Amino acid sequence: MICKPTLLVDEYKCRQNIQLMADKAARHGVEFRPHFKTHQSLEIGKWFKESGVNKITVSSVVMANYFASDWNDITIAFPVNILEINEINELAGKVKLNLQVESIETAEFLSSEIQREAGVFLKIDVGYHRTGIGYNNFKRIDDILKILEGSSNLLFKGFLTHAGHTYKCNSTVDIIKIHNDTIDIMKTLKEKYISLFPDLILSIGDTPGCSLAEDFTGIDEIRPGNFVFYDLMQYYLGSCSAEQIAAAVACPIVAIHKQRNELVIYGGGVHLSKERIEVFGKTIFGQIVERTNSGWGEFIQGMFVKSLSQEHGIVSLPDSLSTKYKVGDVLYIFPVHSCMTANLMDRYDSVNRKQIIESIHS
Amino acid sequence: MICKPTLLVDEYKCRQNIQLMADKAARHGVEFRPHFKTHQSLEIGKWFKESGVNKITVSSVVMANYFASDWNDITIAFPVNILEINEINELAGKVKLNLQVESIETAEFLSSEIQREAGVFLKIDVGYHRTGIGYNNFKRIDDILKILEGSSNLLFKGFLTHAGHTYKCNSTVDIIKIHNDTIDIMKTLKEKYISLFPDLILSIGDTPGCSLAEDFTGIDEIRPGNFVFYDLMQYYLGSCSAEQIAAAVACPIVAIHKQRNELVIYGGGVHLSKERIEVFGKTIFGQIVERTNSGWGEFIQGMFVKSLSQEHGIVSLPDSLSTKYKVGDVLYIFPVHSCMTANLMDRYDSVNRKQIIESIHS
Repeated sequence: MICKPTLLVDEYKCRQNIQLMADKAARHGVEFRPHFKTHQSLEIGKWFKESGVNKITVSSVVMANYFASDWNDITIAFPVNILEINEINELAGKVKLNLQVESIETAEFLSSEIQREAGVFLKIDVGYHRTGIGYNNFKRIDDILKILEGSSNLLFKGFLTHAGHTYKCNSTVDIIKIHNDTIDIMKTLKEKYISLFPDLILSIGDTPGCSLAEDFTGIDEIRPGNFVFYDLMQYYLGSCSAEQIAAAVACPIVAIHKQRNELVIYGGGVHLSKERIEVFGKTIFGQIVERTNSGWGEFIQGMFVKSLSQEHGIVSLPDSLSTKYKVGDVLYIFPVHSCMTANLMDRYDSVNRKQIIESIHS
Repeated sequence: MICKPTLLVDEYKCRQNIQLMADKAARHGVEFRPHFKTHQSLEIGKWFKESGVNKITVSSVVMANYFASDWNDITIAFPVNILEINEINELAGKVKLNLQVESIETAEFLSSEIQREAGVFLKIDVGYHRTGIGYNNFKRIDDILKILEGSSNLLFKGFLTHAGHTYKCNSTVDIIKIHNDTIDIMKTLKEKYISLFPDLILSIGDTPGCSLAEDFTGIDEIRPGNFVFYDLMQYYLGSCSAEQIAAAVACPIVAIHKQRNELVIYGGGVHLSKERIEVFGKTIFGQIVERTNSGWGEFIQGMFVKSLSQEHGIVSLPDSLSTKYKVGDVLYIFPVHSCMTANLMDRYDSVNRKQIIESIHS
C-alpha cells in the first residue's frame, strides 16, 4: 500500500519503450548504446539486456562504477574530469571504457596519466552550445588527434554529439530539422577523417531526435536515455504519446482547499524535482493522471501541480472535480523530467509486479 | 582533496547562525524550535544542542523518525498524512510529538485512530495560501477544536503558521510588514481562544521574517530552518549577509569556452537542484565565490551558474577572468536554495575540521 511519495514504474511500458528503440536502431543499422543516467538502476538495465543491448552510456564515473558489475562496455558521455583520474584508471582496467574529450589540456593530461587502454570520443558542438568542440574547429580537432596519436593507451573512437537544442523546439518539424542538420554536420566530419581513421564512428544522442527521426544515414551509434520512461517534457515536445510515459509519482492528498480550487499533496521538490515547463501559458511541475487497475491512464484535465515547496505540492482542482477527492487519496503524477525525479527517489515500485526495483540510490 | 561535486559546510558560520538565532529567541522570550528539514543531519543537530536547543521541527514522518534517536520533542510541521498513521502512533510512543491539522476529516481520523498522546497545532493561513485554515475561518477552527476535545489522546497546543509569502517580497520592509501582519493575525486568535485554552501557544516560522524582525510580541515559538546555512535566495531577500552563507558546493571545471565566455563544471541539477532566482534580469542557479584558506569569501562578480542539466553546469566567465581558470580547478558555488541542495547530497564536508558530516541521506 502506498503511504508516502512513491516512484512508480510501469514495467510493460518501459520494456516496450526499450524494445521500440532497439528495433529502430536495428532497422537503421546503428548501434544502440542507451544512456543509463535516466534510470540509474542495475535491474532496469537487465531489461535492456533482454532487448539485446550490450553497451551503455553514463554521465559520471560514479555511475560507470555502479554499472560496471553488469556491463563491460561503457561510454562516459561527459567531459573527462581530470581530478578523477585514479577512478578512471581503475575503471579502464575493469571494463571497455570510452571517454569524452573536448579540450587540449584534458587530452594532454590523459595522454600522460592514463595507464590503461581507453577509447576517446571527441565531443562535437552541433549547435546546442552546452559543451563540445565547434564542428568546424578543425584546428582543435587536429591538435587533439595529434595528442591522442602520441599515446599508446588512448584510442580515438570517433565523434560524439548531443543535440540538446531539440529540447527547446516548438514543433516536431523543428526537432527533425535539428536532427537532420546534426547528421549532415557529423557526416562532414566523418568524410574528412575517415581515411585517417577507417574505424571512426559517429554517435548521436538526444531522445527527441532519436524518437522522432527516421533518417540515421551515416550515423553509427545512438545514445538516447530518457525514452525509457519519457515524461511530460517529452510529451509536450511530441517525442512520445501519453501512453508511453512509464514512470509516475504517487502522492497522498493531505489537505483540500475547495474555495481556492486546490489540493495539497505530500510530494514536493524533493520528490518531483523543481523542473518546470510552460504549457498553455501556465507553469506546471507535474500532471495528474487517472489511476487504473494496472497502472495509469489519461491525463485528468485541469489537474496539474502548480507549485512545489520542499515537501508540499499544490495541485489545481477544477470545480467539476471538487467533491471527488478526500484526504488520504493517492494521486498519480507524471513528472516534468523523469531523469531528475528518478535521481531524487531511492527506488522504484513496479505497478505490474508489485515489487521493488533498486537503483544507485537504494 | 575535492574530486567531484561536494557539499561544503563552514561549521563556524553555521554555529554562528545558530547562536544568533538562539540569542534572538532568548532576547524576545520566545521558544526556539528550529526546523531541521534544511540540514537533515543528526551531527549538525548536535550543534543546536550546544546552543541550548531542546525541541525541533521537521516536515515529514521520515525525518521525525531519523531525528527521534537524539530528540525527544518534535513537531511535524506538515499536514498530517493519514496514510502514515501506524508510523505516527509508533513515533508518538517514542517522543513528545506534535502534529499539524487543518481539516475536519484529518481531525476526525486522528481522533479515532491515534493511540498515544500527541499535541496538535492548528495550521493557520495568514496569507501565503499554500495550506492552512483561513485565519478568520472560526467555524472551521471551532469544529476541529470540538473534535479534539472528544479525544483523550489529542491535546490542542495552539496555532502555527508559516508566512512563506515573505519569499516573494521585493524589500526587507515588505518582509517586516508581512511579519508584523502575521503577528497581529495570530494575536487575535490567541485573544479569542486563550480563555478556553490558557496554555495555547503561537508558533511562527519563516527564515526571512525571523532573521529580520525585532518584534515578536505575543509570539511563543519560532521555527525557522534555512538560517542554519542561508543561501542566495535569502541573500537577495536581504535576510542575511553574504558572510553568513554557510554552505557551498565545490565543483570541478571540466571545460572552458572562452569564445562564448563560459566554463563547464561537473555540477548539475542533481547537485545544486534546479531552483532558480531572477537577479538583475538574469536567471541564475548559483553564484561563484572566492576560495580562501579557511573556506570562502566574496562573490566573484560576473561568475554565476547560468544553466544546469543533469550533471553539467554552465558558468558565465567574464572577459577579465578568461585566463584565470584551467580544467581541473575547483569552483565554490553558493546554491540558490540550500535546503534543496542539501537534500540532494549524501553528506557534508566540513571546511574547518576536514571531516565528513553525515545526513539522513548518508
